[in-house]
Amino acid sequence: MHGLRGPALGQALLNPKKIALVGVSDDLSKTTARPLRFLRTAGYGGTIYTINPTRKVVQGEPAYPSLSALPEVPDHAFILTNSELAIDAVEECGKLGIPVATIMAAGFSESGHEGVKREQRLKAIAKDMGVRVLGPSSLGVINVREKLVLTANAAFAEADLPAGGIFCASQSGSMLGALTSRGRARNIGFAGLVSVGGESDLCIGEICEATLDDPNVTGYMLFLESMRHADALHRFALGAAARGKPVVAFKLGRSEVAAELAVSHTGALAGEDSVADTFFSDCGIARVETLDGLLEAMPLLARIPASASHHGGRKPTVGVVTTTGGGAAMAVDQLGIRGVNVIPPSKETLKRLAERGIEASGAAIVDLTLAGTKYEVMKATLEVMQSAPEFDMVLATVGSSARYQPDLAVAPVIDSAHAGKPLACFVVPEAPDALKRLTEAGVPSFRTPEACGDVIAAAFRRRAPVPQLPPPPAAKGERMLDEASAYKMLTPLGVPHAAYAVLAVDAPVPALPFPFPVVVKVLHEEIAHKTDVGGVILNVDSTASLAEAMARIKLNVEKNRPGTVVRQVLVQAMSKGLGEVLVGFRRDADVGPVVMLAAGGVLTEIYRDRALRLAPVTVEVAREMVKEVRALEALAGYRGRQEGDLEAVAQAVAAFSQLALLKDEVVLEAEMNPLIVRPKGDGALAVDALVRLG
Amino acid sequence: MHGLRGPALGQALLNPKKIALVGVSDDLSKTTARPLRFLRTAGYGGTIYTINPTRKVVQGEPAYPSLSALPEVPDHAFILTNSELAIDAVEECGKLGIPVATIMAAGFSESGHEGVKREQRLKAIAKDMGVRVLGPSSLGVINVREKLVLTANAAFAEADLPAGGIFCASQSGSMLGALTSRGRARNIGFAGLVSVGGESDLCIGEICEATLDDPNVTGYMLFLESMRHADALHRFALGAAARGKPVVAFKLGRSEVAAELAVSHTGALAGEDSVADTFFSDCGIARVETLDGLLEAMPLLARIPASASHHGGRKPTVGVVTTTGGGAAMAVDQLGIRGVNVIPPSKETLKRLAERGIEASGAAIVDLTLAGTKYEVMKATLEVMQSAPEFDMVLATVGSSARYQPDLAVAPVIDSAHAGKPLACFVVPEAPDALKRLTEAGVPSFRTPEACGDVIAAAFRRRAPVPQLPPPPAAKGERMLDEASAYKMLTPLGVPHAAYAVLAVDAPVPALPFPFPVVVKVLHEEIAHKTDVGGVILNVDSTASLAEAMARIKLNVEKNRPGTVVRQVLVQAMSKGLGEVLVGFRRDADVGPVVMLAAGGVLTEIYRDRALRLAPVTVEVAREMVKEVRALEALAGYRGRQEGDLEAVAQAVAAFSQLALLKDEVVLEAEMNPLIVRPKGDGALAVDALVRLG
Repeated sequence: MHGLRGPALGQALLNPKKIALVGVSDDLSKTTARPLRFLRTAGYGGTIYTINPTRKVVQGEPAYPSLSALPEVPDHAFILTNSELAIDAVEECGKLGIPVATIMAAGFSESGHEGVKREQRLKAIAKDMGVRVLGPSSLGVINVREKLVLTANAAFAEADLPAGGIFCASQSGSMLGALTSRGRARNIGFAGLVSVGGESDLCIGEICEATLDDPNVTGYMLFLESMRHADALHRFALGAAARGKPVVAFKLGRSEVAAELAVSHTGALAGEDSVADTFFSDCGIARVETLDGLLEAMPLLARIPASASHHGGRKPTVGVVTTTGGGAAMAVDQLGIRGVNVIPPSKETLKRLAERGIEASGAAIVDLTLAGTKYEVMKATLEVMQSAPEFDMVLATVGSSARYQPDLAVAPVIDSAHAGKPLACFVVPEAPDALKRLTEAGVPSFRTPEACGDVIAAAFRRRAPVPQLPPPPAAKGERMLDEASAYKMLTPLGVPHAAYAVLAVDAPVPALPFPFPVVVKVLHEEIAHKTDVGGVILNVDSTASLAEAMARIKLNVEKNRPGTVVRQVLVQAMSKGLGEVLVGFRRDADVGPVVMLAAGGVLTEIYRDRALRLAPVTVEVAREMVKEVRALEALAGYRGRQEGDLEAVAQAVAAFSQLALLKDEVVLEAEMNPLIVRPKGDGALAVDALVRLG
Repeated sequence: MHGLRGPALGQALLNPKKIALVGVSDDLSKTTARPLRFLRTAGYGGTIYTINPTRKVVQGEPAYPSLSALPEVPDHAFILTNSELAIDAVEECGKLGIPVATIMAAGFSESGHEGVKREQRLKAIAKDMGVRVLGPSSLGVINVREKLVLTANAAFAEADLPAGGIFCASQSGSMLGALTSRGRARNIGFAGLVSVGGESDLCIGEICEATLDDPNVTGYMLFLESMRHADALHRFALGAAARGKPVVAFKLGRSEVAAELAVSHTGALAGEDSVADTFFSDCGIARVETLDGLLEAMPLLARIPASASHHGGRKPTVGVVTTTGGGAAMAVDQLGIRGVNVIPPSKETLKRLAERGIEASGAAIVDLTLAGTKYEVMKATLEVMQSAPEFDMVLATVGSSARYQPDLAVAPVIDSAHAGKPLACFVVPEAPDALKRLTEAGVPSFRTPEACGDVIAAAFRRRAPVPQLPPPPAAKGERMLDEASAYKMLTPLGVPHAAYAVLAVDAPVPALPFPFPVVVKVLHEEIAHKTDVGGVILNVDSTASLAEAMARIKLNVEKNRPGTVVRQVLVQAMSKGLGEVLVGFRRDADVGPVVMLAAGGVLTEIYRDRALRLAPVTVEVAREMVKEVRALEALAGYRGRQEGDLEAVAQAVAAFSQLALLKDEVVLEAEMNPLIVRPKGDGALAVDALVRLG
């Protein structure tokens, strides 16, 4: 049976008119008593049925012994029982036609072998019966406008939830409370909140997607512990981008300890954090790294759309206007360390400022000092800056006047925020009133330099979402390709490689189609690390030496790998270059095909210096990747060194990434290691290749 | 004449009984009207004299036409006039015996050639007359207990400044307002605040030093735009460390743009930010990188003393207890990315927890979930964790209960904070009451995961302050040493180098004291970059080739550097190693002698991968430096590679750093590039050296 999907799912999940609370307690000190109490306190307008097999009255309301005993079919059952009873209840939901069940109990796949089996049972029953399940380990859902406080999270005891346009989905149920209370203090309101728990069925992507056409939802806030169901998240992100609804995400696991923690806590696979970074960027999702940034990001994201290379590969630029030099410099520092350039006004802009009577020094910050507390001065400055072509956005930094004259101090910012280039505001002192006014007026505003830098950088890091790939063809069983077969797969994609010939080891050496010296390598699909088995000889400079090298390789390899018979070698022209890069491709378990570019050598491994993207990529995107790999500065004319052909590298990366689209084969993993980078204009050449098919 | 110093300076500067306000305005809308108004509003108990040559009454008070007209000699004159009149006023102070003058005017060394000359004039007059000057560009000083609001900073219009133990000194006057208002919101109070302005005479170090024995001052908060007068700061830091008074600093200039900004804004030299980092660590000053961290650092610094290698070179460890997994994981992430390890309890600790009835999973976070909201459970857990030997400190992370039951939720933390290992608290929801209680109880507590990670990492990064060096001997004029002379200077310090011989180019080749092959290098004190002029020939393998190489080098160099006569070469045994490092020494204009260790090659330059310390360093500190250079992981057994002799590198760095202590020479700059790292046990050898004397 098919369960509900799309907007109908959204209705039953987030806007049910009839609710059943299964296992609700009469003891107000218990967690399982909370949902009924919260719904009543909030004044939920729909029908609530309480289910309790042992009591006729619960919290003063009549209780039913079971779901089957109800006089009508609810839209949504919130199941508060233990894990075994929860599965029974889901089955009952199925029989009765209750479309959505939320499970609070833990004890599923996060808790060992028994739990995994229990979750499999839950999933099978839910699927068979067509019940969509939220959880397990879900603390429930909240629909602020409908006063639906269907949750056992103690934080929602507080009345008058702040209402607004943000739909918040979190893998951590307890964080919903912290986000709501912090939002309240900032005048930031929510349309809905959902604790997605273990995502055994409904996942963040599908839940958010079901709300895409809800006009009350203007943007999305995600709190993630680990990457799960990336395909659904990607689909949702495309829908959100199409509707111009921004998505901001905070994901744990930036440090190794936290990544391990996410695994033990959620039972999910530990995706590499940089893969998650790539995924978010490629989905047009702004990933922030500060908690304040998560709360404060939305208004700026609404002003700066995710668009591919909208600043043409150069670093984004910000113009800064301030009344307090020290305060503004903190924000400049935070932007700078995140790769956002604060630049001074151009001569033309300085001229236009002077025409309005404003003296600016030409330094990176336009410091109005005391004069900037005058409305006309700040307003005129912002007008000129917001229309200057050199800036992607303008940041106003307001000093102590924001605290003592909150209205006057932020008025010019509020009056300027909705025309011209995007404008944001960093408030240096503790100034809750000024921030409240700014937030009410929808002006992107920040209370710490760190959140300011974080959000602005995250907004500029977003890219227009890449389309989703069709599902890969059916796998044909895993196997490796030998180097020659790998080249044959890569050549039609446009990947350049050094000329080669395949020679039989027991035949006479023929004339080679390229000059000596050459490299001789064992050719065998089972041998990925050829050097380790004595299977590579470099600098072979004559036909006689070549024959000798072939014999030696056969001897070496057959000795080092008993049972292997060497029949062929691959002979390749020796290629010299200015440097080497490594290009990799793999299907990530979480996010699908990714392509990676790194400089060669042990140091780049230690530094984890590399660029990642969802595959395939265009040449433009591959050029961005080249710029991201810091070690490649050494090949870009660093300190007068000879320049390498980095354009050829970008072309090769883009070509190689097309492995994601092959129609006949599923490439699980592939590598060019190395791709030789020759001087500018001379191209790049793969001199080794490896492909693993699935 | 000598001006005031030490405690007497502190009295006149920060606790004057009689003040003169020079150039105070009657017009309340003017900045120059503020100090009188603020002092009166605050209820300052001392005598205030107003000086205004054009009015008999200012703000309802009788005014004097000049300082000379006053009936007695004030302790401190706050000069509010323009820059030229300010210099006259300082001169008048000198004549009258007024010991301290604070200058608000700008227009000195930060503003071009005229300004620099003006500042020179100011300094000369102040010195001649024995007047100590605060500023120029100072917004004044505040002594909270004495209600001395001697400032023109609008932020201090607010009554009832929060009183406490922090003495705050800032190069940015406007930031004092933001720090005070943010402190007020956090229940963090100040003993005093000072806007140091351009530090033409009194600098942060000397001002803070003058307050060291003030019992009301329990710690120091510094806001720096650039490094200035590092010697005085170092002296103060030693005094603060001796008295157990923590110092926390926030310094701008972490990004390049901000560093440039500091130059243009303050006229100071742009010190390299990593040098500042080193300086702070070596002075036992905790450098934080978040604004919240600056405000929230003090209580934790008071618990974790700066002590050399107090965790024996290993990463510091933190045990985490929480009621909210998601919230705690944010803090764990922030600690992890800053090199602080969150580790799980040991088996022994888990056993002790179990004995107290607490089930912990063995994961890195001890997640008590709902049970942790019970006083006894949290208290017992903290007791066990705080006495566990595996942790350097314990972090309690409190969830929504901190908001709804502020008293109950933080009571076990407050009751545990002053016994056992240091304990800090991260409060996940918006919970001002809970934070207020924690702050009042002196418990280190944080409202964002970022400030939490920042402060804890900064506390552990501090080292016991290194002693100050005696002033270097008088310089004898700048000159370079040739490579052989450099080795002669380095050898007695214990720096190892490859064997060498100096040969005359026009004499027959003698027998060498080491075998071929050798490298032949031009020996000439004016030639630092020998390769650039054709002055190096490698792999010379016989006496005949050596004679030839010597002739070729003479030819090359004399052709490439017309006017140079090559008389000698240095012949050195060719040394092979597993890798190369660069060891550098220089006298930094701001902080004095520093020693640097980096891996060789262009990549480490691009990555700025290196370790810096104030010189000299002990071998223990040099070992820390070796660990800090990430590229050296490649020589520490990375992925089964052969290990290099990193201990010998540490010994060489420590020996080289003794250049700071030479009694007969001032070494301005020196370099071993490269120092060859041989396999473990085989040592390290300098194969080039350069010394510049001052």
